[in-house]
Amino acid sequence: MIAVDNGVNVQALLDARDVLTGAPEAAQFTWRASAKWENGVRSTTTVRDFFGLGQEQSHKTESVFSADHPAVFAAEDNGITPIEYLLVGLASCLTAGVASVAQNRGIQLRSVESTVEGKHDIRGILGVDSDVRNGYTDITVKFAIDADASKEDIEALVAQSQKRSAVFDALTNPTNVTVELA
Amino acid sequence: MIAVDNGVNVQALLDARDVLTGAPEAAQFTWRASAKWENGVRSTTTVRDFFGLGQEQSHKTESVFSADHPAVFAAEDNGITPIEYLLVGLASCLTAGVASVAQNRGIQLRSVESTVEGKHDIRGILGVDSDVRNGYTDITVKFAIDADASKEDIEALVAQSQKRSAVFDALTNPTNVTVELA
Repeated sequence: MIAVDNGVNVQALLDARDVLTGAPEAAQFTWRASAKWENGVRSTTTVRDFFGLGQEQSHKTESVFSADHPAVFAAEDNGITPIEYLLVGLASCLTAGVASVAQNRGIQLRSVESTVEGKHDIRGILGVDSDVRNGYTDITVKFAIDADASKEDIEALVAQSQKRSAVFDALTNPTNVTVELA
Repeated sequence: MIAVDNGVNVQALLDARDVLTGAPEAAQFTWRASAKWENGVRSTTTVRDFFGLGQEQSHKTESVFSADHPAVFAAEDNGITPIEYLLVGLASCLTAGVASVAQNRGIQLRSVESTVEGKHDIRGILGVDSDVRNGYTDITVKFAIDADASKEDIEALVAQSQKRSAVFDALTNPTNVTVELA
């Protein structure tokens, strides 16, 4: 029997679960981003440090992201639109989940691809109609997965990934967001 | 009197509002992202095309984003964590809103910076405690704004940006997300 290897260290995650069961304070993470207005609707956001396991942590490199609006919004399109970042987060979170669950279940993955579509009625943000929400009307994620498993087992992988996805939860359930002046 | 210029073409947005009031079908946008699993929990997500104003549209360049988990999650940290992308979207959306509203109100901005923090109890995603949610417990955005306006007017800018923010809405209210196998 060939060992399944999707590149996920599942044992470390299971060990972390055991340790954090007895140390809930170490499980309290704070993720951070810092944004700077450039011009127009363009901004640059930097991600580097976070807090977790009881202390300050840092990514091995700083990541910088540009956001802008496209030309059809009379902007310069020097970056993706802010709301598109939500789709990046959703796709990558569910993909990481599929890989982790597959590893835990002994399923070898060959390829995992997905397309995400978010329907957005922009009359909301433009203030045309107060009955139209500002955000997405709905989002669809379609996975194409090639793996050493039955269709039922692959469907179960996707379902379990969704069940434990941080970003899926953040989009499908409300989160309290406080916005204030420093 | 010196004309206020924050680089936002507010007149085009006001014109778009007028046009879309009579053409709601043109206001139906679809934003898209395509993700590909690389290895472990690492994936690459590409954003380029979208649909809006009744036809296919394209950003002027394709954008590619890496996501991974940090070393404290036993991963290789070759990109930010998926849930951090939500903070990038939130910060950039609110910043774009501040610039747009300031332009519309005749307020000259000099600088707009913000820090976003998302509190996350990772016992949820690890399956330690089913009462702990997978996503953020709460999110705080702190703005520091230097502008040619009173503190009250600057507070009102931030409040109006929040009121019309697509990403703020997407995080504070539930969205229907469907995940399926192609």
